[in-house]
Amino acid sequence: MKRSPTPSNPSAHFTEGSPILLRLEKIVGENNVLTRREDLIPYGFDGTAALKKEAICVVLPRSSEAVAEVMRFAHAEKIPVVTRGSGTGLSGGSVPVEGGIVLCLVHLNHILEVDPANLTMLCESGVITKAVDDAATPFGLFYPPDPGSMKISTIGGNVANNSGGLRGLKYGVTRDYVMGLEVVLPSGEVAWLGSKCVKDVAGYSMKDLFVGSEGTLGIITKVLLKLVPRPKARRTLLASFDTMESAARTVSQIIEKQIIPCTLEFLDRKTCASVEAYAKVGLPTGAAAVVLMETDGHPAVVEEEVEAMAEIARENGAISVEQATDEAHATRLATARRSAFSALARIRPTTILEDVTVPRSRLAEIVSHVEEVAARHSLEIATFGHFGDGNVHPTILTDETDHEEMERVELALSEIVDKTIALGGTITGEHGVGLAKKPFLPRQFDEASYSLLKEVKLTLDPHGLLNPGKIFDLDR
Amino acid sequence: MKRSPTPSNPSAHFTEGSPILLRLEKIVGENNVLTRREDLIPYGFDGTAALKKEAICVVLPRSSEAVAEVMRFAHAEKIPVVTRGSGTGLSGGSVPVEGGIVLCLVHLNHILEVDPANLTMLCESGVITKAVDDAATPFGLFYPPDPGSMKISTIGGNVANNSGGLRGLKYGVTRDYVMGLEVVLPSGEVAWLGSKCVKDVAGYSMKDLFVGSEGTLGIITKVLLKLVPRPKARRTLLASFDTMESAARTVSQIIEKQIIPCTLEFLDRKTCASVEAYAKVGLPTGAAAVVLMETDGHPAVVEEEVEAMAEIARENGAISVEQATDEAHATRLATARRSAFSALARIRPTTILEDVTVPRSRLAEIVSHVEEVAARHSLEIATFGHFGDGNVHPTILTDETDHEEMERVELALSEIVDKTIALGGTITGEHGVGLAKKPFLPRQFDEASYSLLKEVKLTLDPHGLLNPGKIFDLDR
Repeated sequence: MKRSPTPSNPSAHFTEGSPILLRLEKIVGENNVLTRREDLIPYGFDGTAALKKEAICVVLPRSSEAVAEVMRFAHAEKIPVVTRGSGTGLSGGSVPVEGGIVLCLVHLNHILEVDPANLTMLCESGVITKAVDDAATPFGLFYPPDPGSMKISTIGGNVANNSGGLRGLKYGVTRDYVMGLEVVLPSGEVAWLGSKCVKDVAGYSMKDLFVGSEGTLGIITKVLLKLVPRPKARRTLLASFDTMESAARTVSQIIEKQIIPCTLEFLDRKTCASVEAYAKVGLPTGAAAVVLMETDGHPAVVEEEVEAMAEIARENGAISVEQATDEAHATRLATARRSAFSALARIRPTTILEDVTVPRSRLAEIVSHVEEVAARHSLEIATFGHFGDGNVHPTILTDETDHEEMERVELALSEIVDKTIALGGTITGEHGVGLAKKPFLPRQFDEASYSLLKEVKLTLDPHGLLNPGKIFDLDR
Repeated sequence: MKRSPTPSNPSAHFTEGSPILLRLEKIVGENNVLTRREDLIPYGFDGTAALKKEAICVVLPRSSEAVAEVMRFAHAEKIPVVTRGSGTGLSGGSVPVEGGIVLCLVHLNHILEVDPANLTMLCESGVITKAVDDAATPFGLFYPPDPGSMKISTIGGNVANNSGGLRGLKYGVTRDYVMGLEVVLPSGEVAWLGSKCVKDVAGYSMKDLFVGSEGTLGIITKVLLKLVPRPKARRTLLASFDTMESAARTVSQIIEKQIIPCTLEFLDRKTCASVEAYAKVGLPTGAAAVVLMETDGHPAVVEEEVEAMAEIARENGAISVEQATDEAHATRLATARRSAFSALARIRPTTILEDVTVPRSRLAEIVSHVEEVAARHSLEIATFGHFGDGNVHPTILTDETDHEEMERVELALSEIVDKTIALGGTITGEHGVGLAKKPFLPRQFDEASYSLLKEVKLTLDPHGLLNPGKIFDLDR
């Protein structure tokens, strides 16, 4: 491909009364453009450690049409645009760029339709993820993807990042629930992709290209979601093991017995200790691994499966197996896993959350590799994550002001990534590439498939205006 | 987008001893290149009525490497390439093009790995779909997509067309089972897309762009498939109704009660009569609609669901409700649906199988529209299909040599397509666009999204070498 993007560094002036600012205020209304330094602070970063950049102008449109008009203007003026929802991203995808507008979509927060006959919901992209599921509940329906941030993240952000969550093993990820999208293209044109049809093979599946594109190909303004019947019963079980290997064997045997629970989460020794110190959920001291298991569906099946899982855990020498007796008990057990990140984040000033994923059968290998790397580089790394998905979150407890330690952190991250790729894994299971994983992406892709990514970006966004510098750099 | 494809009409000479032919024979072996007229006949058409074109050279490679080498050569010489598997396609996607090579992938027929720990299978693209499921069975695993042609179609063809089948309602379509692909790009480069990870958000989901691309973006040579546990029980039920409305109401109420059966198929009055005359399965005379229902999964749940479905059918005035008592009985009931196309194809010389799909709740409307169109144009149209998916197959019984009647057929098809789109539907649920649906595609897409399709094609295949003229024309 010979085309290269127009260098996207216009010296846009966003000073009070400037023509650009006046035009933006005209499109979205004066109150929906922020330029005062104190207003801009929260838009300079997302949930990613050690990545920030000052925003100079934040625009908060209240309709798809306004988004399109802002984009048409930005396109005409060649002003870069960085999109964001709630800013809960974990790869720096929402960090502002030089000379660019931050387009924040949180006011596109309307649920437009729940259609129980077709099991769908249409909503704007700024709706909070949990609100999607809450709106499905009265219809006996269920929106399964549950990223850790679901109480504050937006559905548009979830779609842009193809977010995962704790229920991935049984229910899949955000992509599996996206039937259609309204997107504003970098030109400002509006395209509708997909339909309410559960089978639709007319043309390329462009919606699947936008799902997980991290906002680099278009701005998602509306989402048509698939819903499923709400499971009638759920059972929760927490088992502790004195080795990671026995935990891994338990998980393998559950899958081999063809039980597909909705959740199979684990905490390693260091995470267990932190969680217990923080949340006092009653984890056994000395546990090398704790596995949280949840099964949902028909009451009879759920009973059978929870008993079978408890039995498999005991056969593999679990040092404790605790079955929730009621909803409150289940919530307490789930807290052990849900509080992992918060518990770890208290220990050192900086918490770097990794997100590598391997084929499920290789999980014990990557966990022990992480332990070995931590010891070799004298780093504190705790690991937890989604055992059933092979998705692990090695969490480096460090201090970004300590440059010497940060160098060791970089080395450790690089080694973990290399091992992951060697095991047939991916550098990111659910957090995205953004800025944080960009240097590692070429290691995972062969030359031809890496080129394809860039060719697609150059085709859809030839001027490199949307979220430039995310996923990969084009200015070679 | 300013680039336009190089006109792809080289006067390639495939006469005996020509340099092009010698080179192709050198790559794949002399026995794997066909040029004798009698050998070429079966490669001039696929399963689509009234679409054929003589092939001039058929190449049958036996490895991914050979495919890549053929493509590199074709790319260098700017020779168009049409790909095919078993040729069971229903939209003319495998019909040869002027001056082009037909690349037939049926010899890439090896299953390379079944990995029960990760619930995956890796195979070459020429493996027969049923062989995929057969190879999963000894592991207690299941490959759910079951297009009508599954006993002869190839998995690569299924992936290229994102094939559906009878189990779509519960299990989804081919796309939902594709975790990775090896593709040969139009340049002859080989790219691997995807991984064994159940969560993987590194870069754009290019594999999803190739799934359903009908061979126009790359040649699929290997497929990494997701498998699921084989359901332990299955129950089959056949219900007849004296109106299509009561059948539709039955289906709606099943979904409202949150039962998601694996199969909810229907036959209209004309199809019922043809099937009964042909297969003698004991359908009640005068039935306006027959619905085949199947539920699978845990034995207790399956029992409960089949009883509930029978009850709902009776409440809606079913004139007969027959529950299969054993496997042979179930097969006999399923025969009513499985033999629909064969039964109809006996009636007139030409059978045109439509494939429109609407949101499930609009199915009764499209069926009655088809009846109205048939009456108005004095055509014989029988309709059957996937009620649970809103995917209907109006089947026009006609004679392609009767030009006057064929004009009425064209009008009828056009009207059915317009109504489908007005109902929020798609011009093709599972058969693809190919040549047959190409004229209708722009009606379904807005301008921006239709342009995206062409831009993607021009980016990935700038010379328009792969399956040119399929899905859309670029030479404007």
